[in-house]
Amino acid sequence: MDERHRVIIVGCGFGGLSAAQRLKDVDAGVTLIDRRNHHLFQPLLYQVAMSVLSTADIAWPIRHLFKDRKNIRTILGEVVGVDTQRREVDLASGATLGYDTLVLATGSTHAYFGHDEWAVHAPGLKTLEDATTIRRRILLAFEQAELDPDPDRRRALLTFTIIGGGPTGVELAGTIAELARETLRGEFSRFSVDEVRVVLVEAAPRILSGFSEKMAGYAERKLESLGVEVWKGQPVSECGPKGVTVGEKMLESRTLVWAAGVEASPAAKWISAPADKAGRVEVEPDLSVPGHPEIFVIGDTASVSMPNGDPVPGLAPAAKQQGTFVGDLLRARLTGGTEPERFVYHHRGSLATVGERDAVVEMGWFKLKGRLAWLLWGVAHIYFLIGTRSRFTVALSWFWTYLFSRRSARLITQRDALSGKPPEGEETRAVDEAPPGAQVSEVTR
Amino acid sequence: MDERHRVIIVGCGFGGLSAAQRLKDVDAGVTLIDRRNHHLFQPLLYQVAMSVLSTADIAWPIRHLFKDRKNIRTILGEVVGVDTQRREVDLASGATLGYDTLVLATGSTHAYFGHDEWAVHAPGLKTLEDATTIRRRILLAFEQAELDPDPDRRRALLTFTIIGGGPTGVELAGTIAELARETLRGEFSRFSVDEVRVVLVEAAPRILSGFSEKMAGYAERKLESLGVEVWKGQPVSECGPKGVTVGEKMLESRTLVWAAGVEASPAAKWISAPADKAGRVEVEPDLSVPGHPEIFVIGDTASVSMPNGDPVPGLAPAAKQQGTFVGDLLRARLTGGTEPERFVYHHRGSLATVGERDAVVEMGWFKLKGRLAWLLWGVAHIYFLIGTRSRFTVALSWFWTYLFSRRSARLITQRDALSGKPPEGEETRAVDEAPPGAQVSEVTR
Repeated sequence: MDERHRVIIVGCGFGGLSAAQRLKDVDAGVTLIDRRNHHLFQPLLYQVAMSVLSTADIAWPIRHLFKDRKNIRTILGEVVGVDTQRREVDLASGATLGYDTLVLATGSTHAYFGHDEWAVHAPGLKTLEDATTIRRRILLAFEQAELDPDPDRRRALLTFTIIGGGPTGVELAGTIAELARETLRGEFSRFSVDEVRVVLVEAAPRILSGFSEKMAGYAERKLESLGVEVWKGQPVSECGPKGVTVGEKMLESRTLVWAAGVEASPAAKWISAPADKAGRVEVEPDLSVPGHPEIFVIGDTASVSMPNGDPVPGLAPAAKQQGTFVGDLLRARLTGGTEPERFVYHHRGSLATVGERDAVVEMGWFKLKGRLAWLLWGVAHIYFLIGTRSRFTVALSWFWTYLFSRRSARLITQRDALSGKPPEGEETRAVDEAPPGAQVSEVTR
Repeated sequence: MDERHRVIIVGCGFGGLSAAQRLKDVDAGVTLIDRRNHHLFQPLLYQVAMSVLSTADIAWPIRHLFKDRKNIRTILGEVVGVDTQRREVDLASGATLGYDTLVLATGSTHAYFGHDEWAVHAPGLKTLEDATTIRRRILLAFEQAELDPDPDRRRALLTFTIIGGGPTGVELAGTIAELARETLRGEFSRFSVDEVRVVLVEAAPRILSGFSEKMAGYAERKLESLGVEVWKGQPVSECGPKGVTVGEKMLESRTLVWAAGVEASPAAKWISAPADKAGRVEVEPDLSVPGHPEIFVIGDTASVSMPNGDPVPGLAPAAKQQGTFVGDLLRARLTGGTEPERFVYHHRGSLATVGERDAVVEMGWFKLKGRLAWLLWGVAHIYFLIGTRSRFTVALSWFWTYLFSRRSARLITQRDALSGKPPEGEETRAVDEAPPGAQVSEVTR
C-alpha cells in the first residue's frame, strides 16, 4: 500500500500545471484532475476564434506532459465537491479521492453581471469550444450577408460587437477588423468589406485600464485606424438576438462576443471558504485557506493582494507564480525544508496586440508600442508555448497571416449547413438561421 | 443584366473543385454551392481521427480558393432539390437558383446496409466532425479505462473495432494500434497498452480487395505484427452499445468505427434519374444524365464503367478526372470547340498505409511495399495538398509522429467533461458515460 503523502491538484491551467511541475520528483503521490484532457494556452485563444491558429497549436494533452513522471497521475474528471473533514474530493462520476494536501486551481468563467441569459447571444472566450463557436458565428455572419438581399439585415450581419475593452476585447476587435478588411477582401460579391463595422464597447471611461493612459490612448487611435469604433463610458444594458443596447442606444449586431467580466469557479463553495464578490477565495499570505493549512487556492480562483493593497491581476503569469510558490512550499514541507511564508507577485508587464501588426507593451519603466512591441509580444508568447512543434507551427501561422493576410484555420465546423442545427449546448439564435426568404436568383441571372 | 451562361456546381469535393478550376477563365457565371465552407482532403481524414493532423491542415475555405476568379461565385448552402423543367436548384433556405448547366458532385455517405440504427454506435468517416467524434471516442475510451476498476469493462473499453477492410479500415486499424502501443505507452497506470485490442472486421475472404492478393497478404501480416487482429470472411450482424456481433460471435468493444460501405448522395432522386443500387446516377459516356445534356453527374454520385465493364472506383483521382473532363467539355461547348465524347478513367494506382511507417502501393506493373512505399505514399499525398502552408505543416506533423511517436492533435473537444453530454447529433451511448461506480480511491492510498 502506497503510504506516500497524497497531493491532489484540481485544474491544469497555468497555476495547476506550475504546481505539478514543481512536484515532479518529490516523494509524494500527486494526482492531477481536469475536466479536459488538455492544458490550454489561453493568451492565444483569441487567435483560434479569429481563424489564425488551429486548436491543436495551443493545447497539449496533460497526460503526455507528465508521461515520464511516475509520481504524477492524471485523471480526466469533473470535481463537484470537497469534503474537508474526511479530506476527500468528489467527482461527478460518483467516485471520491482522498487527499492529504489539496490545491485548487480551477480558474474562472465568464460573468454576465446577473444576466446569464445573455450568454447565448454573447459567448465568452475560455475554452477551445468557445473559440470555435465564435469562429463559426463570425464566418457564418459573412456567409449569410453574402446571401441576404435585404440591406438592413445585411448591415446587422456585418456588425460585430465586442463587449469589454480589456486586453482580450482589444485583441479581438483589432483582429476581427483585419480579418474583414484584409483576409476577406475581394471574396464576397454582394457587399464590400468596407461595410463591415466592428464596435468595441467599454463601460469605463477608457479601454485597457491595466495600462497607462498614454498607451491606452495609442491603442484606441490604432484600433480606430483599423476601422474599429470604440464606444466608451456606457455599460451594456441588454444583449439579445438582434443586437446590443449600450446605455439607451440600440445597436443592431448579429454577432456579439463577451470579454467584459469573469467570476471565479465555485471552489469557494466546495470548501465553504470566505470569498470576495467575484467568488474568489480570500487566502492567507501563503495561499492556504484560513483554518486549512492543507488546502491551497491559486490563480483566478484566489483573491490575493499586492503589498500596496491592489489585487493580484487574473493573468497567466500570476497563476504560474502562485503555482510555483505552492509547489515549492509543498516540496519544502515534504522534505523538511523551510516553507516560504508569503507569496509575492512580480508583475512582469502588460502586453496586448492591436490588430496583427501592432501591440502595446508596458514592463515597469519600459514602455513600447507599434511594430517592435508586436514583435516582442510575439517572441514572448512563442517562448511560453510548450514544445518545439507548437512554437514552430504558431510562428509559421503568424508569418503567413502577417505576410499574406491569410488565415489558416477559416473553418466553420460543428454544424451541418446553414439550415442545420447548432451543436448541443449552444442555443439557437437568430444569427444562426438562414436569412428568411433570401432571394439569390438575381445572382445568376 | 448578366446574360452569361450560368453554370451551377453542387459540391466542392475533388470533382466539383476540379470542374470549377477548369472554368475559372471562361466567359460564364459559375456558382459553386457547398454545405460546408471548406474543401476537405478526405484521403488524410483518418489522420485527424487518429490525432496526427489538425483539422485545419486538410481543409481550405472554398471562397478563398476562388478569390481571384471573378466569374466564380461561392455559396454556403444546402441543396434540397432540382427542378429540371424550370432549370432551378432549390436551397434549404427556400431560395432558388437558375442554371443553364448543372454539375452534381455531391459525393457519398456511409451506408449501413439497411441498419441506420448502427450509425450512433459505429460512426463513419466523411467529415471533419466525424473525425473529431472518432478522435474523442478513442481518447475517451483510454481515459475511462484508466478510471475503471472493473477488468471486464476495462477490457471492453480497450477493444477497438474497425468494420471494413478497405484502405480506410486498414489505415485506421494500423494507426490506432500504433497510437496505443507507441504514443500512449507509459501514460496510464491502471493498464498496460499491451492489453489494447484492435480488431479489423472484413466480410469478404480477404482485406484490400482493390489490391493484388500478394499485397493484401503483406498488409495483413504487417497489421498483425502491429497487434491488429484481422477477422475475415464473416459479416457484422449487429452493432450496439456493448460491441459488435460478427457472424455468431459477440465482441465486447466500446469503440466501433464504420469503414464498410458507402452510398451515393440523393442527387439521383433530385433529378429523377436512373440509379444503381448504391444510388449512383447511371450517366452517359460523357457523364451527362440521359435525356439531360445540360446536367452532369461526377465523382461518387456517378456510376461510370471502364472499358472492361468494371465500375470506375470511388477514389479521389477518379472524381478529379471526371471534374476535369466535364470542365473541359463545358469549356469547349461555351467557346465553340469540339466536345470530348467519352470519359476515360486512368487508374494511377492504389495506395494504403499500414501503420505509420509502412504502406502498400500498386501502380500498374509497379508494386512496392514497406518503408519506401510509405515514403512514396507520403510524397504523393503532400503533393496533392493545397498550398505551401498545408504541405509544410502536414510534413512536420508526420515527421514528429514518425520520429518521436508523438501526436500533435490529441484533443478531446466538444464535450464538457466525462460526465458531460455529447454534442448535438450524436446520441448518448454507453461508451460516453462515466464508468458507473468507478472507485478510484485506492489510487491515491
